[in-house]
Amino acid sequence: MHAYRSHSCAALTSANVGDTVRLSGWVHRVRDHGGVLFIDLRDHYGVTQVLCDPDSPVFAEVEKVRSEWCIRIDGNVKARDESLINPKLPTGEIEVYIRDLEVLGQSAELPLMVFGDQEYPEETRLTYRYLDLRREKMQENMKLRSDVVASIRKRMWDKAFREYQTPIITASSPEGARDFLVPSRLHPGKFYALPQAPQQFKQLLMVSGFDKYFQIAPCFRDEDPRADRSPTDFYQLDMEMSFVEQQDVFDTVAPVLAGVFEEFGGGKKVDAPETWAQISYRDAALWYGSDKPDLRNPIKMQVVSEHFRGSGFAIFAKLLEQDGTEIRAIPAPTGGSRKFCDRMNAYAQKEGLPGMGYIFWRDQGEGMEAAGPLAKNIGPERTEAIRQQLGLGVGDAAFFLGGKPKAFEAIAGRARNVIGEELNLIDQDRFAFAWIVDFPIYEADEETGKIDFEHNPFSMPQGGMEALQGDPLKVLGYQYDLACNGYELVSGAIRNHRPEIMFKAFEIAGYDEAEVRKRFGGMVNAFQYGAPPHGGCAAGIDRIVMLLAGEQNIREVILFPMNQRAEDLMMDAPNDPTSDQLMELGLRVIPQD
Amino acid sequence: MHAYRSHSCAALTSANVGDTVRLSGWVHRVRDHGGVLFIDLRDHYGVTQVLCDPDSPVFAEVEKVRSEWCIRIDGNVKARDESLINPKLPTGEIEVYIRDLEVLGQSAELPLMVFGDQEYPEETRLTYRYLDLRREKMQENMKLRSDVVASIRKRMWDKAFREYQTPIITASSPEGARDFLVPSRLHPGKFYALPQAPQQFKQLLMVSGFDKYFQIAPCFRDEDPRADRSPTDFYQLDMEMSFVEQQDVFDTVAPVLAGVFEEFGGGKKVDAPETWAQISYRDAALWYGSDKPDLRNPIKMQVVSEHFRGSGFAIFAKLLEQDGTEIRAIPAPTGGSRKFCDRMNAYAQKEGLPGMGYIFWRDQGEGMEAAGPLAKNIGPERTEAIRQQLGLGVGDAAFFLGGKPKAFEAIAGRARNVIGEELNLIDQDRFAFAWIVDFPIYEADEETGKIDFEHNPFSMPQGGMEALQGDPLKVLGYQYDLACNGYELVSGAIRNHRPEIMFKAFEIAGYDEAEVRKRFGGMVNAFQYGAPPHGGCAAGIDRIVMLLAGEQNIREVILFPMNQRAEDLMMDAPNDPTSDQLMELGLRVIPQD
Repeated sequence: MHAYRSHSCAALTSANVGDTVRLSGWVHRVRDHGGVLFIDLRDHYGVTQVLCDPDSPVFAEVEKVRSEWCIRIDGNVKARDESLINPKLPTGEIEVYIRDLEVLGQSAELPLMVFGDQEYPEETRLTYRYLDLRREKMQENMKLRSDVVASIRKRMWDKAFREYQTPIITASSPEGARDFLVPSRLHPGKFYALPQAPQQFKQLLMVSGFDKYFQIAPCFRDEDPRADRSPTDFYQLDMEMSFVEQQDVFDTVAPVLAGVFEEFGGGKKVDAPETWAQISYRDAALWYGSDKPDLRNPIKMQVVSEHFRGSGFAIFAKLLEQDGTEIRAIPAPTGGSRKFCDRMNAYAQKEGLPGMGYIFWRDQGEGMEAAGPLAKNIGPERTEAIRQQLGLGVGDAAFFLGGKPKAFEAIAGRARNVIGEELNLIDQDRFAFAWIVDFPIYEADEETGKIDFEHNPFSMPQGGMEALQGDPLKVLGYQYDLACNGYELVSGAIRNHRPEIMFKAFEIAGYDEAEVRKRFGGMVNAFQYGAPPHGGCAAGIDRIVMLLAGEQNIREVILFPMNQRAEDLMMDAPNDPTSDQLMELGLRVIPQD
Repeated sequence: MHAYRSHSCAALTSANVGDTVRLSGWVHRVRDHGGVLFIDLRDHYGVTQVLCDPDSPVFAEVEKVRSEWCIRIDGNVKARDESLINPKLPTGEIEVYIRDLEVLGQSAELPLMVFGDQEYPEETRLTYRYLDLRREKMQENMKLRSDVVASIRKRMWDKAFREYQTPIITASSPEGARDFLVPSRLHPGKFYALPQAPQQFKQLLMVSGFDKYFQIAPCFRDEDPRADRSPTDFYQLDMEMSFVEQQDVFDTVAPVLAGVFEEFGGGKKVDAPETWAQISYRDAALWYGSDKPDLRNPIKMQVVSEHFRGSGFAIFAKLLEQDGTEIRAIPAPTGGSRKFCDRMNAYAQKEGLPGMGYIFWRDQGEGMEAAGPLAKNIGPERTEAIRQQLGLGVGDAAFFLGGKPKAFEAIAGRARNVIGEELNLIDQDRFAFAWIVDFPIYEADEETGKIDFEHNPFSMPQGGMEALQGDPLKVLGYQYDLACNGYELVSGAIRNHRPEIMFKAFEIAGYDEAEVRKRFGGMVNAFQYGAPPHGGCAAGIDRIVMLLAGEQNIREVILFPMNQRAEDLMMDAPNDPTSDQLMELGLRVIPQD
């Protein structure tokens, strides 16, 4: 017989009754029922009930066994009494009578119980991550992550993509976030950097003629702590294709992601890729107040300025006399009660607004009536026009925000979320996707007016060189995101592969040719030698797994995460270097005050 | 029609004759045949011959096109004349008459030709790697690498292994080589390290109950330059299993590797896994003078001390009076000529030995005769006994080396290789595998006699705690390598999962418990909480691909390798940090003299 097991702890059924078997695993829990010891023996695959009565030759040893000891037992499989069958357990029909025991690994007193649902502080969980990971939910999350990544790979291979590994020790390349640096020993005083993303390398692969690339790529960013992201690194499905337009990228990546969500979404409805809307960045801001809208929420905001211009509601009427101002409405179907409207108004005040005006429609036995202070101020005609535009009726409400859109769009978006949640308008059993397209290439600094890149500087401007001759703030890029349930899952672009257009694009943002060559030399040089048109995207693996696992915290889907202070409590990192190490690297640590 | 292509450059056949098509790709070469321009248009998939005669509306533009420009053409597919059909090309039956041209990316003057077989200095190739990678052999190598890795993944999944990603930014853990350090910004003066291998993490995964782990894992070592390795990082198939013995690991990994070699070995014979020998480290040293023997070479060395003890060959006879000395023979079938024997003797002298004694057997018409100085010295009886022991005959030779085995084993191994090569004894069309087992856990320093770990300190000693009570130099480990054609492809062990045995093992090598806890704290702590028996191995991906691609230089199978000075010439790494970066990290660069 095998030294450790004839079966896993999920394998035995009534078909094995009468067999002598060998099992290995962890003592999930021990119960003493009138002198008979019952042990739930757990391995990666499942749990088997094993028991030991005083007749067993190893009863005395089994008595010593405690939770989370790793043991090997030999025993006889017996059928459980009809009344003791556990239909929830694959092994619920049988139990194993222990005849021999070997303790493979004892356990010290546990800082964290594997059995049960007790909650522990995150510091404890991360310090003893190997115990925390034994818990059922964590085992499931990590298996899910592994299976999702495997499924993505298979789906990309099926689409004739190959995975290529790009360098991890490479050059600093300021792409927005901070680099992690790696000092060179052979070249003291010089540093490598870990890649923030394989952006330049995947574009170089296209210049090298590889046509279709993907990689489950580790990305490194020295981020300031934030609850929902790793302070050091994350993984993305990184992909790139040559000789494509934007729609080709969509047609490639959408079925891959939809397939993964179908496969692992636990039966939740997944919008079919051909139904995914393409919403312009500008429309997304207007309709949803976000470039990653949650489309499970049916609320769509509208511009209602005309109804307030010159109206009796002086605040909005005056506001509209200023250039660039608008009034927008957030329709709130089923929100038609003063109590709800007041609560939302209070929410807006908490968010720093003076408040949110509202109208709601009710029927107190005399037909439909519009209520709320706004309705009075603007009168019945305008109120009715608004109702008709928004398609609302009795029992519904609408909220109004005014000003320069940039100043209130984000708050409007959050209010839309809260209204949707409070009114139970959000379909929790659905993954709703939309492409957000037509991102502006540039933005102007609010204060200085200085033009800078709004997003990725490597995107091809729509209209090419010609577009760059006009107003930069009007230039849109072939740049896109994929939103799912309020998260940005994917980001990508058709790249700017023409050196002359790239230099012009950077010039507008204030970087001269020398600076661009210095920062992105590898890629810019390459573009001089017959660069193909190309584009692609990157999808966040951690976020996809979070969504599928229903987790809010990224550390629940990472095996050995850093804490929020970027420390690995289990491995004790970061740590003090030895003076030899510093010497070899030609570095000195500046004493901190 | 699609903006860039209706077909790839490998797709068109005589079935497309008459079609109007659109192709995109690179100008592989241009020829002018009597005013008609022939272009080999190349993409990732193949080459199509496109041509332009003066009747074409774009003749003038096509005339300007040069090598490696990226272009898009529209044209009509026509059948080639019978005499011009190229059966070596999938598209060899047709050619495309250009009617429209778009230059997608011009090329500056090329520092390196993609077409043809011209050799370039490695510095040129690495600086312009994106051009170098367009060359056919490099495209094939990179596709091979990608396909090998994909195949390994599929084979591991088929064996119920899941891939788990372990941290890349982690703690320094001295495992033999130098760590790359990563300074922490949030904790100035402290450093992370990049993992030399996921050794501790995969063992922690076993303690966490994951049972079967694998990863195509990047490993980082700050190595001094050497031609056949990357100075910064490499990839390995890293795997680990719980509740297993050594043979279980072999039974798991051997079919995976054999399968990969079958699949990508280009028809070369692959030894079936069940025939792979298990050779002890000691026997491998004796028989092959190497722990990574090339078993395509049939030569097996033997101990022949008895034939020389007290013989007339005084050098060996005297040598054998010293403790621990031996005489070993390298049989050389078909090597029976004085010319060959003298050449090998000269080889040994070049390697720093006084020479290699030899005997060879010939028949000059009067029956078998043993020739060479050694034969005369020891006389016909002893000579004949040696011949019989080695199983040699007329036309064969044998070489002899003596001394303390450690002192000459490596040279004997190299001589065995040279003899095998020179005599054409090596089957070039075979991948020959053998497990090398029973590695000693410890070695004694030649000079100081100090005991240290011979290999991996985490291996379980055979005989456990009891074995550690005796002579450390006699303790063997459950530790193994897989040799293939003279390379070490795999290295692994059954791990020492018992804290008390681990502390004892380290104590013997001079590390007290505090030191072990400091160095390997994460893992040692974990072993206190019910650690399962476990073991695994790691297989070098770069080396596997090198063997399959028939390459001698690791940089031929890596997309964007460092040069031997650990510089990335294309991306300009390592580079000077900005003073802001240094300030944030709390570091100062020590000026170098």
